[in-house]
Amino acid sequence: MTFHEACGIVGIASDTPVLTLIQVGLRALQHRGQESAGVTIHDGAHQTHRAMGLVSSALERLEARFLQGTVGLGHVRYSTAGDSTLRNAQPITVSSGSGELSIVHNGTIANQHQLREEREAKGWAFLSDTDSEIIVRLLANRLPRLGSPVRAIRSTMERLVGSYSIALLHDGDLYAFRDPLGIKPLCLGRLPGGHVVASESVALDAMGARFVRDVAPGEIVQLTTDGIIPHPGESQARAHCMFEYVYFARADSRLDGQLAYNTRWELGRRLWDESPIEADVVVPLPDSGTAFALGYAEASGLPYREGLIKNRFVWRSFIQPHDAKRRATVNEKLNPVPEFLAGRRVVLVDDSIVRGNTSRRIVNRVRDAGAREVHLRIGCPPIISPCYLGIDMPSREEFIARGRSLTEIARETGADSVHYVSREGLVEAIGKPVRELCLGCLTGAYPVPIPGGKQRSQATLEEYSQG
Amino acid sequence: MTFHEACGIVGIASDTPVLTLIQVGLRALQHRGQESAGVTIHDGAHQTHRAMGLVSSALERLEARFLQGTVGLGHVRYSTAGDSTLRNAQPITVSSGSGELSIVHNGTIANQHQLREEREAKGWAFLSDTDSEIIVRLLANRLPRLGSPVRAIRSTMERLVGSYSIALLHDGDLYAFRDPLGIKPLCLGRLPGGHVVASESVALDAMGARFVRDVAPGEIVQLTTDGIIPHPGESQARAHCMFEYVYFARADSRLDGQLAYNTRWELGRRLWDESPIEADVVVPLPDSGTAFALGYAEASGLPYREGLIKNRFVWRSFIQPHDAKRRATVNEKLNPVPEFLAGRRVVLVDDSIVRGNTSRRIVNRVRDAGAREVHLRIGCPPIISPCYLGIDMPSREEFIARGRSLTEIARETGADSVHYVSREGLVEAIGKPVRELCLGCLTGAYPVPIPGGKQRSQATLEEYSQG
Amino acid sequence: MTFHEACGIVGIASDTPVLTLIQVGLRALQHRGQESAGVTIHDGAHQTHRAMGLVSSALERLEARFLQGTVGLGHVRYSTAGDSTLRNAQPITVSSGSGELSIVHNGTIANQHQLREEREAKGWAFLSDTDSEIIVRLLANRLPRLGSPVRAIRSTMERLVGSYSIALLHDGDLYAFRDPLGIKPLCLGRLPGGHVVASESVALDAMGARFVRDVAPGEIVQLTTDGIIPHPGESQARAHCMFEYVYFARADSRLDGQLAYNTRWELGRRLWDESPIEADVVVPLPDSGTAFALGYAEASGLPYREGLIKNRFVWRSFIQPHDAKRRATVNEKLNPVPEFLAGRRVVLVDDSIVRGNTSRRIVNRVRDAGAREVHLRIGCPPIISPCYLGIDMPSREEFIARGRSLTEIARETGADSVHYVSREGLVEAIGKPVRELCLGCLTGAYPVPIPGGKQRSQATLEEYSQG
Amino acid sequence: MTFHEACGIVGIASDTPVLTLIQVGLRALQHRGQESAGVTIHDGAHQTHRAMGLVSSALERLEARFLQGTVGLGHVRYSTAGDSTLRNAQPITVSSGSGELSIVHNGTIANQHQLREEREAKGWAFLSDTDSEIIVRLLANRLPRLGSPVRAIRSTMERLVGSYSIALLHDGDLYAFRDPLGIKPLCLGRLPGGHVVASESVALDAMGARFVRDVAPGEIVQLTTDGIIPHPGESQARAHCMFEYVYFARADSRLDGQLAYNTRWELGRRLWDESPIEADVVVPLPDSGTAFALGYAEASGLPYREGLIKNRFVWRSFIQPHDAKRRATVNEKLNPVPEFLAGRRVVLVDDSIVRGNTSRRIVNRVRDAGAREVHLRIGCPPIISPCYLGIDMPSREEFIARGRSLTEIARETGADSVHYVSREGLVEAIGKPVRELCLGCLTGAYPVPIPGGKQRSQATLEEYSQG
Repeated sequence: MTFHEACGIVGIASDTPVLTLIQVGLRALQHRGQESAGVTIHDGAHQTHRAMGLVSSALERLEARFLQGTVGLGHVRYSTAGDSTLRNAQPITVSSGSGELSIVHNGTIANQHQLREEREAKGWAFLSDTDSEIIVRLLANRLPRLGSPVRAIRSTMERLVGSYSIALLHDGDLYAFRDPLGIKPLCLGRLPGGHVVASESVALDAMGARFVRDVAPGEIVQLTTDGIIPHPGESQARAHCMFEYVYFARADSRLDGQLAYNTRWELGRRLWDESPIEADVVVPLPDSGTAFALGYAEASGLPYREGLIKNRFVWRSFIQPHDAKRRATVNEKLNPVPEFLAGRRVVLVDDSIVRGNTSRRIVNRVRDAGAREVHLRIGCPPIISPCYLGIDMPSREEFIARGRSLTEIARETGADSVHYVSREGLVEAIGKPVRELCLGCLTGAYPVPIPGGKQRSQATLEEYSQG
Repeated sequence: MTFHEACGIVGIASDTPVLTLIQVGLRALQHRGQESAGVTIHDGAHQTHRAMGLVSSALERLEARFLQGTVGLGHVRYSTAGDSTLRNAQPITVSSGSGELSIVHNGTIANQHQLREEREAKGWAFLSDTDSEIIVRLLANRLPRLGSPVRAIRSTMERLVGSYSIALLHDGDLYAFRDPLGIKPLCLGRLPGGHVVASESVALDAMGARFVRDVAPGEIVQLTTDGIIPHPGESQARAHCMFEYVYFARADSRLDGQLAYNTRWELGRRLWDESPIEADVVVPLPDSGTAFALGYAEASGLPYREGLIKNRFVWRSFIQPHDAKRRATVNEKLNPVPEFLAGRRVVLVDDSIVRGNTSRRIVNRVRDAGAREVHLRIGCPPIISPCYLGIDMPSREEFIARGRSLTEIARETGADSVHYVSREGLVEAIGKPVRELCLGCLTGAYPVPIPGGKQRSQATLEEYSQG
Repeated sequence: MTFHEACGIVGIASDTPVLTLIQVGLRALQHRGQESAGVTIHDGAHQTHRAMGLVSSALERLEARFLQGTVGLGHVRYSTAGDSTLRNAQPITVSSGSGELSIVHNGTIANQHQLREEREAKGWAFLSDTDSEIIVRLLANRLPRLGSPVRAIRSTMERLVGSYSIALLHDGDLYAFRDPLGIKPLCLGRLPGGHVVASESVALDAMGARFVRDVAPGEIVQLTTDGIIPHPGESQARAHCMFEYVYFARADSRLDGQLAYNTRWELGRRLWDESPIEADVVVPLPDSGTAFALGYAEASGLPYREGLIKNRFVWRSFIQPHDAKRRATVNEKLNPVPEFLAGRRVVLVDDSIVRGNTSRRIVNRVRDAGAREVHLRIGCPPIISPCYLGIDMPSREEFIARGRSLTEIARETGADSVHYVSREGLVEAIGKPVRELCLGCLTGAYPVPIPGGKQRSQATLEEYSQG
Repeated sequence: MTFHEACGIVGIASDTPVLTLIQVGLRALQHRGQESAGVTIHDGAHQTHRAMGLVSSALERLEARFLQGTVGLGHVRYSTAGDSTLRNAQPITVSSGSGELSIVHNGTIANQHQLREEREAKGWAFLSDTDSEIIVRLLANRLPRLGSPVRAIRSTMERLVGSYSIALLHDGDLYAFRDPLGIKPLCLGRLPGGHVVASESVALDAMGARFVRDVAPGEIVQLTTDGIIPHPGESQARAHCMFEYVYFARADSRLDGQLAYNTRWELGRRLWDESPIEADVVVPLPDSGTAFALGYAEASGLPYREGLIKNRFVWRSFIQPHDAKRRATVNEKLNPVPEFLAGRRVVLVDDSIVRGNTSRRIVNRVRDAGAREVHLRIGCPPIISPCYLGIDMPSREEFIARGRSLTEIARETGADSVHYVSREGLVEAIGKPVRELCLGCLTGAYPVPIPGGKQRSQATLEEYSQG
C-alpha cells in the first residue's frame, strides 16, 4: 500500500545545543512525511526555519544562531490539512502577550472548520490553512488569561476534537501533549543532559536517547533538562490508530508498548491460519509487505522469495507527455524476478489495499512473469471508510472493498483469490482490547464525533463484528 | 548617500491576466527594495508567492494558476520593520469570516508597538514581526462587523499613526489607500482594460499605463476594470516625505505633481547660488549626485566631468577574512579618473550625508587621484534626527551633522569645504509649502506623535528656521 | 559491505526519441554510481549534458533539443579513476576529422598511465584525468586512418589492457564493445522500434526491453533500429568479475546467464554447509546481506529475523564538529531490534568484509542489544589484494583479512566466530569454471598484466587453492 | 548600441593567495562578458573552476584549496566562438608531457577552422568548440619539443592569425602574450608582492595595482613576484581595435596610452564640429552615449539633459507568450522624460548603430514624448562589414549603413537627420596614426588575411578615405 503519511514531530530540552539531534531525530521520522521539514530553536528568541523537501536538504543551510539553542522542536510533514505550500509547513511560531509560542503537530482536528468559523465570526483572521494554526492561536489566546501554559493547554484541549500529538515551545519551556484517546503515537526519552519527545521510538534510538515511556492519552508533560513533569488527563478511554501498527510506524518502533514489527509478523501468521492455501512460494510487496510475508512463510512452511525487487532510487516516474504510449510497459519501481515466479502458485502479501489500482498492476506483472496462480493476502481488514483523524485517504466511493465481495475483489485485481485478515485477527495481533483501538476506516464508526460521520458506542463496539 | 530604501507596491484590476504586468511594475520599483519580492493573484482564491531576492529571480518560477488571475498585488521590500526573513515578506494574506484579504504596504506605523500590545493583551497572537500584519489583522477584524471594506479601512485608519500607502485585495476587489498626511507616495493609472495603483509613476510608465492622478492623502479608492471609485478623506494636512524627492524615488518619477529630477537639478543650482566657490570642475557621486551636479554645473558655468566611474556589477565586496590588510587599497565600486581630477579644484556633489563614512572615503580617494582642493556640496540639509516613518536610519548619535559645525564636518570628511543646501532652498526646490512636507529628519519635529519624539506644530512650523 | 561502485552505462538506437528511456535505464543502474550522471543525444549533432548528483536531479532540466534525438548514450558514475569533479563526468564527446564521437565507459584501463605518457611524449594534451578520455582520443585518432569505426575500435582494443564495457556514438551510429575477458558486464536488448545496450539486465527490464544476450567478451556490436550487427572477438578466455555476482549488480540482474540473486542465496546456503553452528536466529546486514541470509536460513532451518532495520533516508550523517562526543552513541543508519536479538545466539550474515570497521561497529551494536553470541558469516572469501580493474578499494595494508587468521579476525571484529565462504564455494555458486572468473582481489593474481601486480597463469590457476 | 562583448582576462603572480584579487579583477572586467566566469589557481596542481553566470554567483562557492594558491588566472566570457555552454567556458586546463597548462583568451583566431582541420586530419580530437582549445593544444604540443614555454608560445604565435590577448599558466609559471598587431588590449601592473596582467587598466585600479605599461603587440612576458621579464616581438605593425575606444572598454580604462573616456568625449565634440545644427537639448542614450553627449553639449553650448532614464535592474524582459499584444506599449529598460523632450528639438547621441532596430525604437519613443525634432548623432563611422577578430556582429546584410545614404538611414530610423562622425574624426580622437588601428568593420579591409575577406594594404590604407 502506498497512501500518504501524516507528520513526525520531535522536541528536545537539553543542556547542550540541540539542532543536530533534532535533525537526526527528524531523519528517523522521515518515513512519516517527505514534503517539508522545519525546526524552531530557542536561543533567547524562537528561531524558526521551514523549507520544502527532505530533512537533509530543507535543513541544510541554517545560520549560526540555530546552532546555539539548547531547546527546540522539529517537524516533517505530509499534508493532511492545508495544501502543500511553505506557508502551511511547521513549526508555526507566534508572538503573544505572554511571549512566543511554537508548535509541531501530528494529527487532524476533526472540528477545525467549526473552530475556525467560530473564531472568524469573532473577527479572527488566519494566515495559513492549517488546523495547527488554530491550535497555536487558541493556546496564545488562553495563555494570558489562564496564566500557566498547562492550564492554557488543558483549556485548549477541551475545545479540540480529533487526533493530536503536539510539542509546544513557550519561550524556553518545552511541553508535549496528546489527545485524550491517544490516537497518534508520542513517546518520551532521556538523553545525557536532557529529555526528548518524539512521534516514534526509532527517533529516540537514532538520537541515542533511552526510551522512558509513552505520553499517556490526555496527558500534558513538561520536559526539562532535569526531568519530565507529568500532568495526567482524566479519560481512561483509548483509541490508538491501528494503521500505525500496520503501516505508518517504522517496523522497529514500539507503539504504546508494542513493537510494530511483531504485529505485522503476527498478522502474516494469522493470514495463513485464517485461510490456508496450496501454494509454492510466498512473495512480499517490498517494503510494506515484508514483515507480514515472513510471518506467513514461517506459519505456512512455504518458501519465502523476494520475487519483486524494488529500485530504491525511484521516487517518481520520468514519464513525459510524448511517452504516454510506453507507460504500460515501463515499470521502474518494482521488477519481478521470473526465476521465483514462473510456473509457481504465488502468495503475494501486502499490508493493505485502498483503491486497488496498485494491486491490480502488480498482480498483472507477476502473471506476466509466468506465475501459475496469484493469491493476494492482505494484513489489514478491508478499508471501507475514510479516515478523518490524520490519514490522507480517497473518498468513500474509491475504496475497492466497499460493497464488493472477496470474489469480486479478486476479479477486480486479477488475483485467483484474496484474503484480508479478520478484525479479530488484527485486534489480537496488536494485542490491545478492541475498545482501545480506532478502527474507523474499517467500520465507519469513529471514536469522536465527526461531521457527517457515525460515532461508535464504546459500550457495544458494534463495529467489531466483521462487516 | 546609500541608506536603505523602504518598499514598492503595485495593484492591478484588469480584464486580462495581470501577473506579467505586476512583474514589470515591480521591476520599475526595484530601486525601492531588493530584499524580497511577492505577488498575490486572485483566480477565485488568493494565490500568494513570496521569495527572497530581486523580482527577476524571486518571481521566476510561478505555477500556472498565477497566470490566470486578472486582479492582483505586488511588493518589493527592504525591511524597515521586522527582520529580513521570508516570514516578514509581503503580500500578507489572511482568511477571515468575510473572505480573503491580502495587503502590500509601504511605510511605517509609528504606534505599531502600542497597537500590538493592545491586541496581545486581548489574546491575539502574531505570526510575523511586521506592522503590515497588524494592519491586515485589524482590517479583517473590523470587516465582518462593519460590513463594507471601505468602512473597515476607514475605521482601521483611525487607529493607525504613521506612514502608509497600501493596496488591499479583498477576495476579487482591489482597494488602495494612503495615510492622511500623504507621507509616502501612491499614484493611479489607467491601462487598456483596467486600472492600476503604484508607489511611483515610473511603474505606470513601464506597464504602459497612463498616469491619472495621485491618491490623495487620507483617500480610499476602489479600482475596477471600469473605473476608480474615490472615497475622499477629510484632512487637509499634508506631510510628504522630502526624501522621496531627494533620493528615494527614481529621478523620472512624478511625485504629487513634481518630477523628482527637476527638484534634484534645482537643488544643485541652489547649491551654487547659496555658496559659490572658485573651482575647476564639478564631479557627481554616481548615480545619486548626478542630477544635482548637472544643475550645479549649469548654474556655475563650471565644466561637468564624470570623475568617479561606477562599476555597475558590484553589489557587495569580495573581501574575505585573510584579505583584511588589502581592504584599504581595494575599491571596487567607484574608480576615480585622474585625468579629470589631478591638479584641479573639485566640487564633489552628492544628495545627502548620513554618517559621513562614505564621504570621507571618497574625498580621500579624490585627493589620492591628485585633486588640489575638494569641496563637498550636498543637496539636502543636514540630517540630525532619525526617521520613524519609513526610512531605515542609524541612531541619533551617528549622524555626522548632529552637533557639528560645517568646519568640523569638513575636517571629519577631509574636505576643504562643505555646504548643505538650506531648508528654504530645499522647500522651494520641491515647490510645495513647508507645511505640506515632512522634514522630521532635518528638524526632529515630526508631523505625527512619535513615542519619545517631538511633534511639530502646524501653526508655527518652528522647525523650518535653520538649526 | 559498503565500498564504492563503479559506473553504469546505457545506449539506445530507436525510431522514437530516446531521452526518457535513457533516464529510466540509468535510474535502474543508479546503484552502480550516484556521483554524476550524463547523456549524449544525437539530433544531428551530439548534445551532451552532464551534472553532479543522482539521475533525477542531474538530468532534470534538459533543453528541448535533447528531446528530439532517437539515438543516445547515458552514464552514471562513481569515480574509480580521476577525481570526482564535473570535468571527469561522462559521456565524453569529441569532434574529430571523422565526425563526432561520444563514449560511456564502465571499467578501468590498467595501462592508462603508460598510454597517457606515450601520448604525452608525442605532444598530446589531456583535458580530463580519466582513462575514458584516453580511449575516445585513441578512437578518434585511429578513425580517419582506418576508415571504419569497427576497425578503429578493434585497433584501440589492441592497445587497452584492463576492464571496459563501452557504448560509443559516432555521429548517429551506435556501437558497443567489451574487453576480451568480459570483466565487466554488458548486455543487449530489443525494444519496439530499436535496440539497447546496458550494464545490467535490470535496465532492460525497467525500459520495457526484452533481453537478447550478453555482449560476448572481445565482441564489438553495432546497434541499429533494425538489428544488432556482431563483430566477434577472437579470445576464448574469460575473467568475469566475481564481485558483480556478490555485490555490485542488482540482485535481479542476470549476468552472463546467471541471476545474481541465486548466486547470493546459494552462497548463504553454502555458508551453513561449510560451517554449521548452533544458533537461534539468522540476521542479515540490510540490504547487502539479505539474499545470503535467506539462503542460510533455509539451509539451516534457523529462523530468519530482520534484527537490524535500515533508515532508507539516511545517506550521510548530520554530525557537526561540536557533536563529536556524541558520535559513538548516535547511529542513524541501522537500528538493532532487541526483540530479535536479546538473549539469542545470532548469526550475522553479510556479503563481504574489506577493512572490517563497519563489521566491528555492527557486531558491537548487536551485542549492546543483548545478543548472547554473534557469529559473522561472510558470503565472499577473504579479500586480500586491491582491485585494479574497476573497483575502488583501499590499499593492501588495510584489508582486515590480510595476514590474519579467522580467530584474529573474530577478535578484531568482536565476533564469537567468523566464517568466510570458501573459494570453491564461491566458484560453484557462480556456476562457471574458475578459469572464467577474475578472482584477483581474493588471490593477488590478475587476469591481465598489472603494473606491480602478479599475472595469473591460466594453465595452473594457482590462485584457486585456498590461501 | 548594444552588441555583445568578448572576454576579459586576468593573471596574477604574487607572494600571497590570489583568489580574491582575481575575483575583484574579473568584476572590474564584468562589462566584457556576463555569460560565464572561471579561475585557475595553482596550489601545486592547477585547480580550475568554471560556471555560468556573473562572477559574483559563478565563483561564489569555491573550495578551500582555491584559497591557497599564489598564482592564478581568471576569465569572464561572452561567446564569440563556440556556443554558450559550460564546456566552452575558460580557463581551459590540460595536462601534457611537460606539465599542466591553462589559458585564458580574449580575441578570435581567424584561421581557427583551417588549424582545426589540419590537426583533425592528423588524428586530433577536440573536446570543445573553441579556438582557445586549439591554442592550448598547440602550446602543449610544442612544449616538450621546444623545451621552453617562451619558445613554444613563439612557435604557436607563428601559426595563429587573428586577435589574441592571452595569459598562460604553465605549472606555477605565469606568461602573457598579445598578437603581433595588438588588436585586443592587455596591460601590466604591479602589486605589493607581485605582478598582474589584465585586459583593461580598470582591473588594475580595482585590485589596487599600479599600472606599469601595456603588453606590446607581439610581445611575450613572464610575470613573477619579483618582476616582468619581456620577450619582445619583431613586428612594428599595429592594428588596435577602434571599438575598444568607442564602446567595449570601460570609460575609465587607459588603452595603449589613451583614456577611453577622452576619446568618446572628443568624438562628441567632433560630432558638433562636423555637423552643427539648431537644436534645444542634447540627450544621451544611457550609458553608451553619455561621454559623447557631454562632449557634444560642451562644444555646442546646448543644454545637456538626461531625457532617457535607464532601469538598472532590467536585464531581460518579462514578456510571456500571451502578452505579445502588449509588447509594443511596454518598455521596461528606458523611460523617456517628457519634461526634457516635449516641444524640443532633440539631439540624440549614441556611440554606434549596427542594425538600427534599437535606434528606430528609441527615436519613436522620444517623438511619443513630444519631441519636435530628433537628430541622431553617432560617435562612430558607419559599420558596413562584420568583425572577424573578436566582436560578435550580425551578417553583412543586416547593417543599416550598408548601401544606404544618410537620408535613407534617417528615414529608416525615423530621425529628422543622422550624422556619423567621420573616419578622420575617429582616428584623430583616438590620437593614433590610422595605420595603427583596425578599422575592418568600417571599411571591409582587415589587417590580417580573413577567409573570404579583403586584406588591407598597409602602404595605401585605402580604406581610410571615406566610403
